[in-house]
Amino acid sequence: MKIQDIGGEFELIDRLAAIAGQVHGDLVVGIGDDAAVIRTAPEPAPYLLVTTDLLVEGSHFSSRWCSPEQVGHKAVACNASDIAAMGGKPSWMFASLVLAPNADVEWVEGLYRGMARACRSNGIILAGGDTTHGPAASLSITLLGIVDQGHLCLRSQAKPGDLIMVTGTLGASAAALALLEKNDKPDLYLLSKHCAPDCRLDISDIIAPLANAMIDISDGLGSEIRHICRQSRVGAEIVADRIPLHPEVRRAADQLGIDPLSFALQGGEDYELLFTMAPERVEGLMKRTDDCHQIGIVTQGQYEPVLILADGNRIRLPEGYNHFKK
Amino acid sequence: MKIQDIGGEFELIDRLAAIAGQVHGDLVVGIGDDAAVIRTAPEPAPYLLVTTDLLVEGSHFSSRWCSPEQVGHKAVACNASDIAAMGGKPSWMFASLVLAPNADVEWVEGLYRGMARACRSNGIILAGGDTTHGPAASLSITLLGIVDQGHLCLRSQAKPGDLIMVTGTLGASAAALALLEKNDKPDLYLLSKHCAPDCRLDISDIIAPLANAMIDISDGLGSEIRHICRQSRVGAEIVADRIPLHPEVRRAADQLGIDPLSFALQGGEDYELLFTMAPERVEGLMKRTDDCHQIGIVTQGQYEPVLILADGNRIRLPEGYNHFKK
Repeated sequence: MKIQDIGGEFELIDRLAAIAGQVHGDLVVGIGDDAAVIRTAPEPAPYLLVTTDLLVEGSHFSSRWCSPEQVGHKAVACNASDIAAMGGKPSWMFASLVLAPNADVEWVEGLYRGMARACRSNGIILAGGDTTHGPAASLSITLLGIVDQGHLCLRSQAKPGDLIMVTGTLGASAAALALLEKNDKPDLYLLSKHCAPDCRLDISDIIAPLANAMIDISDGLGSEIRHICRQSRVGAEIVADRIPLHPEVRRAADQLGIDPLSFALQGGEDYELLFTMAPERVEGLMKRTDDCHQIGIVTQGQYEPVLILADGNRIRLPEGYNHFKK
Repeated sequence: MKIQDIGGEFELIDRLAAIAGQVHGDLVVGIGDDAAVIRTAPEPAPYLLVTTDLLVEGSHFSSRWCSPEQVGHKAVACNASDIAAMGGKPSWMFASLVLAPNADVEWVEGLYRGMARACRSNGIILAGGDTTHGPAASLSITLLGIVDQGHLCLRSQAKPGDLIMVTGTLGASAAALALLEKNDKPDLYLLSKHCAPDCRLDISDIIAPLANAMIDISDGLGSEIRHICRQSRVGAEIVADRIPLHPEVRRAADQLGIDPLSFALQGGEDYELLFTMAPERVEGLMKRTDDCHQIGIVTQGQYEPVLILADGNRIRLPEGYNHFKK
């Protein structure tokens, strides 16, 4: 049986969690959120966060378009984004590398320079790893972090009536990739969002004490909202016109003749934050930042999220990117 | 420049550590030992240990010879072995998986069954991970553990005059692989040492309070002794006749017409422990176990280890397995 026959990546993860997921009093959150949450000392000590991500050449990065420094930067950012989405601060990083036997030393050194720089700017210490050889380059990162118990944000904590919010704008990375794959040249803004995105640690500590549920946007808004709905057992209504898009994303969509929303909903690798929050808390948030945008509302009971179009029509929210899906 | 042009894997790691290695007061040991050692709470709280290992299909495991359950078992054992070599106990594990798009669900489920079983028998909780697709299967494991400060064993703590000791017997995994690669069938003992080796957590907590330096044997005795010599700035004399070999390893060597010591020195994947210890402590150890064997002595000053043959001749100790080496 192939993975696409059972429905794709998320169905596979469910099966593996059923086989291998274990329960332990100190495992506050296990498989199924952006990071695992572990109690290492009696409360009220902060929790330990652990996240791990794999980047494979060809799937997650390409040396055709991105420098090795950028690949290293992105690897750090996408892991730090998982820690930000839990409301935490990253601390210690471990990087394991599979290299083709004929890999260039200069490429590997560039990758590490990019990782080291991104670590420094996010307060992370690179503390170890492993190198070995294989048929294609890949990079596996494990990042530890800590979070105060009162700031921990889970996918499972959205409440009916919460506002659905996002940081920044969405779709730039996917728009850049779509242009690159057509041999078009994205502008510098789009290219930097694809090759060297930053995570939102600059704003996550303002959001975390106020939010209910939070997740980072790595597989597209359509996918991330479904994670929150499924794990919080709620529904969601998203207003299409409210989804923040950068002018360059609209321009790329025009150029390619497609709907710019598809980059935001089905694209991925934005590393912005999606969160839900009680309406009475929004004013407090908006006093501290102008980079959070309300895009919808959490609803009761039904789990399939809805997209409300400009003409008032309601459609099923398109899904995001799912590895292995047919 | 290619990796073999600079000398291989260990030279690459030195270069990467120079680029990216960071110093931090709470990083007790960073890149260069079996696991990183992190201070997470004021002393005398135990240290946090973190180790990470990559297994690539074709290099580190083969579905031709090993069941998916065995691959999962081995992945856990080789990481737990790193924690054992620091004198610690493993606790939380994270497993990231690269799968070919046409991977069999049954194979992946078998892998997780093997990991789950090995985790349970070693007191480890599987707490998270990641799955994605790529051209070849690979598995990246990060394992956390803890160690009492008084039991921490580093590669850098060998002292001239220490006895050099190993646990168990060496070379079985390499002997099995050599037979398999010649289409010969290893006996069950050798095959299980290759496909489903165990680590020495059963004995490491007896050794750790008594040992000075310790390392696990994953790349062959020749390589591991060099790590200890280099990091402790000492020399070593190994007595060839003292290196413990299982009768099946000798039989495999006879069959293949090669020196059985080469399996122990240059083979790898034994996951036994190599350690050094003050002579006056050996009696205390031997009272508690009969599975530790003296194979040599730590010497002063010279860093290149020596092998003393049965005829009294002294040769340069053959090196172990080094990825990327010419």
